[in-house]
Amino acid sequence: VYIIGEKINGMFKSVREAIRNRDAKVIRDLAISQLAAGCDALDVNTGPSSSKPVEDMVWLVKTIREATSATLAIDSARASVIEAGIALAGAGSIINSTSAIPEKFEPLSDLAAKAKCRLICLTINEAGVPHTTAERAELGLMMIARAAEKGLEPTDLFLDPIVLPVAVDQKSAFVVLETLKEFQLVSNPPPHTVIGLSNLSQGTKERSLIDRSFLAMAVAYGLDSAILNPLDEELMRVVASTQILAGKTLYCESFVKAYLDSKEKRGA
Amino acid sequence: VYIIGEKINGMFKSVREAIRNRDAKVIRDLAISQLAAGCDALDVNTGPSSSKPVEDMVWLVKTIREATSATLAIDSARASVIEAGIALAGAGSIINSTSAIPEKFEPLSDLAAKAKCRLICLTINEAGVPHTTAERAELGLMMIARAAEKGLEPTDLFLDPIVLPVAVDQKSAFVVLETLKEFQLVSNPPPHTVIGLSNLSQGTKERSLIDRSFLAMAVAYGLDSAILNPLDEELMRVVASTQILAGKTLYCESFVKAYLDSKEKRGA
Repeated sequence: VYIIGEKINGMFKSVREAIRNRDAKVIRDLAISQLAAGCDALDVNTGPSSSKPVEDMVWLVKTIREATSATLAIDSARASVIEAGIALAGAGSIINSTSAIPEKFEPLSDLAAKAKCRLICLTINEAGVPHTTAERAELGLMMIARAAEKGLEPTDLFLDPIVLPVAVDQKSAFVVLETLKEFQLVSNPPPHTVIGLSNLSQGTKERSLIDRSFLAMAVAYGLDSAILNPLDEELMRVVASTQILAGKTLYCESFVKAYLDSKEKRGA
Repeated sequence: VYIIGEKINGMFKSVREAIRNRDAKVIRDLAISQLAAGCDALDVNTGPSSSKPVEDMVWLVKTIREATSATLAIDSARASVIEAGIALAGAGSIINSTSAIPEKFEPLSDLAAKAKCRLICLTINEAGVPHTTAERAELGLMMIARAAEKGLEPTDLFLDPIVLPVAVDQKSAFVVLETLKEFQLVSNPPPHTVIGLSNLSQGTKERSLIDRSFLAMAVAYGLDSAILNPLDEELMRVVASTQILAGKTLYCESFVKAYLDSKEKRGA
């Protein structure tokens, strides 16, 4: 599983304050600790309450780059903020995210093609998140086709079936599993798949437990990337074990350590 | 998930000694603690080293019956031992196990029909454990058909795709997942499915982690029963969470407690 660390996000109070106070150490420490814990890329989001999100994003990316050259996933609802982040983060970065709504898809897929970046594609349209697997797969296929016209390969895309909080919409968890499997059939080679894992457990009292169980279930359905909290050690141990059980990495006695070590080398 | 507690088994040293010394308290305590931890049925196995397994099985069942009327899974490689256990355990018990080898299947399916018991069917034949999902499903279908001739419904059977130690045969874990899904298509209504979970982690240093991750993966593929260690609290929490995520039980804030409480009422 390609792990995108979720912690550098202004929705967390400590990050919000660090952004406001331009406290570079807090941000750099979060970058380093997440990479050390085994993630492959770092999500970067100014948070919803930022009053000058472009400036904040520029500061965040510059600050993180002082600590690491790891891949960044530039995360914002606004195209202008993503553009500013990508300009600094460079080729190979991840745009988080676009959707099947044309006004969202066109500029961000153009940017991905131009800047040689990868693109997280939410399978959502004007009507919201479709209820069925078939409709979500259709949106995924449509985005793959449109992206191809711009020179983006399916493997440049991460299709996101959209995980809803289980406390709000319990049924959607299983629909997400089936959708992950379906995504692997929409093109050859298939696109990558990604979920924003911790959205699932929002509002529950057992966040880590729910995240861990669902991560294992999703890997069994072919999930190959996730945005999650890499500082949850038990979660990362589950990630390592699912790679063994799904036959993605070779079993050895110390497979957890081997998995995290291999990640650390890549992230460094 | 219908949980069959695995602890009353002579392969564990403390149980082996309790059987040898006719120490009823050890056995009764294991029965009660497993049921309190949330299992639905108790596996009963004298262990491979018993020199008088029929006598030992009779003593075990009588001893357990002094403590609980819970469902028992009478577990032995010998038909004579199973017969002796089932005679005492009564209708509704589980025979653990038969296989697609005729000399194993015929007498034990006859016994299941006559004693009104359920039957765990290993998808194994004279050649051993088949490598592919299709071959295992074929053996399952054959056993369902033969059992039907004797008046057993598909729902009286638990098909077991056979979990091999991941340290020995890493690939088979994913084959088991796909086989579990296939088993649900071989009849309508489908048979139950079961795995001997802890076999998977034999010889590894991370037994609970592997068991927990695979249990979640298997439930995502439709597993509805497992022989496992219910005294592993974290494993039972994973069981509870997978039932929520697979939509098998309704979400509530205290879903772990609700799940274990409902089990305790049934097991009592």
